[in-house]
Amino acid sequence: MSPEEFRAVGHRLIDWIADYRARVEAHPVMARTEPGAIKKQLPATPPEAAESFDAILRDLDRIVVPGLSHWQHPRFFGYFPCNGSLASVLGDYVSTGLGVLGLAWQSSPALTEIEEVVTDWMRMMLGLSGAWSGVIQDTASTSTLVALISARERTTGYSLGRGGLQAEPAPLVVYTSAQSHSSVDKAALLAGFGRQNIRVVPHDAQRAMRPEALAAAIAADRQAGGRPCAVVATAGSTTSTALDPIDAVADIAAKHGVWLHVDAAMAGSAMILPECRWMWDGVERADSLVINPHKWLGAAFDCTLYYVRDAEHLVRVMSTNPSYLQSAADGRVKNLRDWGIPLGRRFRALKLWFLIREQGVSGLQARLRRDLANAQHLADSIGAAPGWRVLAPVPLQTLCVRHEPAGLDGEALDRHTLAWVERVNRSGAAYLTPAVLDGHWMVRVSIGAETTERSHVEELWRAMRMEAER
Amino acid sequence: MSPEEFRAVGHRLIDWIADYRARVEAHPVMARTEPGAIKKQLPATPPEAAESFDAILRDLDRIVVPGLSHWQHPRFFGYFPCNGSLASVLGDYVSTGLGVLGLAWQSSPALTEIEEVVTDWMRMMLGLSGAWSGVIQDTASTSTLVALISARERTTGYSLGRGGLQAEPAPLVVYTSAQSHSSVDKAALLAGFGRQNIRVVPHDAQRAMRPEALAAAIAADRQAGGRPCAVVATAGSTTSTALDPIDAVADIAAKHGVWLHVDAAMAGSAMILPECRWMWDGVERADSLVINPHKWLGAAFDCTLYYVRDAEHLVRVMSTNPSYLQSAADGRVKNLRDWGIPLGRRFRALKLWFLIREQGVSGLQARLRRDLANAQHLADSIGAAPGWRVLAPVPLQTLCVRHEPAGLDGEALDRHTLAWVERVNRSGAAYLTPAVLDGHWMVRVSIGAETTERSHVEELWRAMRMEAER
Repeated sequence: MSPEEFRAVGHRLIDWIADYRARVEAHPVMARTEPGAIKKQLPATPPEAAESFDAILRDLDRIVVPGLSHWQHPRFFGYFPCNGSLASVLGDYVSTGLGVLGLAWQSSPALTEIEEVVTDWMRMMLGLSGAWSGVIQDTASTSTLVALISARERTTGYSLGRGGLQAEPAPLVVYTSAQSHSSVDKAALLAGFGRQNIRVVPHDAQRAMRPEALAAAIAADRQAGGRPCAVVATAGSTTSTALDPIDAVADIAAKHGVWLHVDAAMAGSAMILPECRWMWDGVERADSLVINPHKWLGAAFDCTLYYVRDAEHLVRVMSTNPSYLQSAADGRVKNLRDWGIPLGRRFRALKLWFLIREQGVSGLQARLRRDLANAQHLADSIGAAPGWRVLAPVPLQTLCVRHEPAGLDGEALDRHTLAWVERVNRSGAAYLTPAVLDGHWMVRVSIGAETTERSHVEELWRAMRMEAER
Repeated sequence: MSPEEFRAVGHRLIDWIADYRARVEAHPVMARTEPGAIKKQLPATPPEAAESFDAILRDLDRIVVPGLSHWQHPRFFGYFPCNGSLASVLGDYVSTGLGVLGLAWQSSPALTEIEEVVTDWMRMMLGLSGAWSGVIQDTASTSTLVALISARERTTGYSLGRGGLQAEPAPLVVYTSAQSHSSVDKAALLAGFGRQNIRVVPHDAQRAMRPEALAAAIAADRQAGGRPCAVVATAGSTTSTALDPIDAVADIAAKHGVWLHVDAAMAGSAMILPECRWMWDGVERADSLVINPHKWLGAAFDCTLYYVRDAEHLVRVMSTNPSYLQSAADGRVKNLRDWGIPLGRRFRALKLWFLIREQGVSGLQARLRRDLANAQHLADSIGAAPGWRVLAPVPLQTLCVRHEPAGLDGEALDRHTLAWVERVNRSGAAYLTPAVLDGHWMVRVSIGAETTERSHVEELWRAMRMEAER
């Protein structure tokens, strides 16, 4: 495709995206697709000859859009908000259009330096001290894996340079709570710790990790000859946005030389609001920290921020330096390939740079405050409705809700819950994701799509009542 | 930003990208930026208030473009081709504009199913049997890490479910050659094997792994009580596109129950040409395989294909299933979160789908054949020029070249090589990356930018002679 063809088709595509966003509310929020239905519409073999762009665009309307759940829909309350704010989308368009790659500083200096500046802007916006250095990763899952590998290498004094984890004399142990994200478990398993060396630390009634239980678990492991290595504390758990007491956890981690990784994938965005920062009190004492601007904040996916206190340690664990990547500038620049797993890097900083500039810090703050107020408003409405219950504190924008008609409990209540949420989702009126809390199904209402106004929250509440109480 | 503002600014941005691509040849290929020069032009703190989009667009011209090395430039011969073909760029624009996320099949069915179809199209285009299942990952680095973790878990019978790698009785060993990519080493270290358990298998004069040396290394490890776990064979090494003898390596791997991972990150694209498939003869016997369509083929970065023979094993190693990701469709669908490390997924299949359809298989094949012919043409010119030498076979599109004036050798020759390539790069005429081959610096000429025609290769050759022979 020539630049002139790109210009022509590109204009049509911009209009198509603008129309999609403007009319997204007209779609049922959750896809109504049956498994295999999309596949069946596509040719089983690739086209030998070139196709027209008209045919491709037609298939977007015919096949793709009906097969989507619409994350940018104002009545999307599932999973978590994943806002691809349109300014950020344009930043990403520049990145893809330029097609430059950050293998090394030299391979496109602006890619590295703008990433340095923007991660530092974000550090300030989050109220973090200058002791932190940041880098953009793809996801929190990957960042947590990097964190646990970094912990492993600190505890073992860089066993990777010797016999690896397999040559270590006593088992390294990782601590987290049952409320932490599934990626914490996964990272510990992929990093080689083994399930037997993951301790699930008990939590309190607010689903926050109990520091004295953590201390006891570490003491027991020490006594048994184990080596406490890392603790992962969560700011804003996935199920209920529960908040682990980071400062108290940090006391214990510091005492035992244990790496503290803070997973603020969800709550991190809220830390641009000074009034929310009590939620991660003690974060300055962590070793590593992950935040997902591609969730609530509005950076187009994928855009995760990974901050560390000791960048030299990270680079020592992750560095490679083959001759074909060396340049005369090395030593005076950052080579971000040594800050994570992949060698190749997109120009991801652009989408964050565009977002922050187009909105301004104050604009981003105002939107997040709107969502916090919407969550409180809905919590009040639900709390006042007979037969309904908000099951967990609502420090952020996620509510855990159950409709509990008199006489229903146990499995019957579970069935009722799953049935009414399925009816809401099938109706197209909203998208909600159920989850298990304290052993029983409940419904998460995750507010914070960029397009969600108070009226949409009220429409949701009407749909919930209609389907649950019918 | 509203959809209507997006429409207006988006049109300007499309024109900006079209102009950039149309005029990219006017830029010096390699950035002339000094370390820190970009950072200095940006405010140290984030903007409190919103900025106009005009200001942002101005900074693209003022700050970003002068700070780039231009990978889409027709005289870009550095590293490897990283073609962001414009049809593929538009596919990625759709992905970012839709802003949907593939956490689970249910979270956007079309995202998963089109990925299934397109990875299967690519399988057919590459001449692979139906025994392979594919998934899109970000990079080959990540895919190789996934492969080595999968190997670790097969050899240990899923130690991750028990005490992890640290509880294993005898060390697991990984085999590769000194010509393999730096990410192989990195993956083995991150997966916990340890440097002492990476065997660098000797290679022959063509820089291909010597199968009898691999067999000897495995035998020696067995005798010493080690557990041979995985071998990584390369199809198209980074430095010289050397080809490991995959079939012979597979014989040995099969005999010892060792996992065979084939790194065809570079050569993989060429496998859409039947006449190139001898280069990875035996590939059907591998356990895992990585190919980078974001290199030569033209898929906008990042787009890596990872194929496995035993998808069930991959899922068993990678799976997580928290309640908030479960849906009624599970069991009848693929949940691609269980096929790699990250939980979140972009709609990456769109950029590959657009590329294949807009070019057709025949269009992609024609371009790659053009580049292969250009590489042979340049090799012939260099081979015929006094004082110049092509140092390695040229099976693909990369040449290893040295200008060797009479009387120069050793360190003096190294200095001469680094000096003339630096002069070429500084001149702006072309971008070449030097590398070490057999202990001495030489210059890699990596042909295959989508815009590179025969005339650009001839201009490059004139620039090389001018700067080296002056």
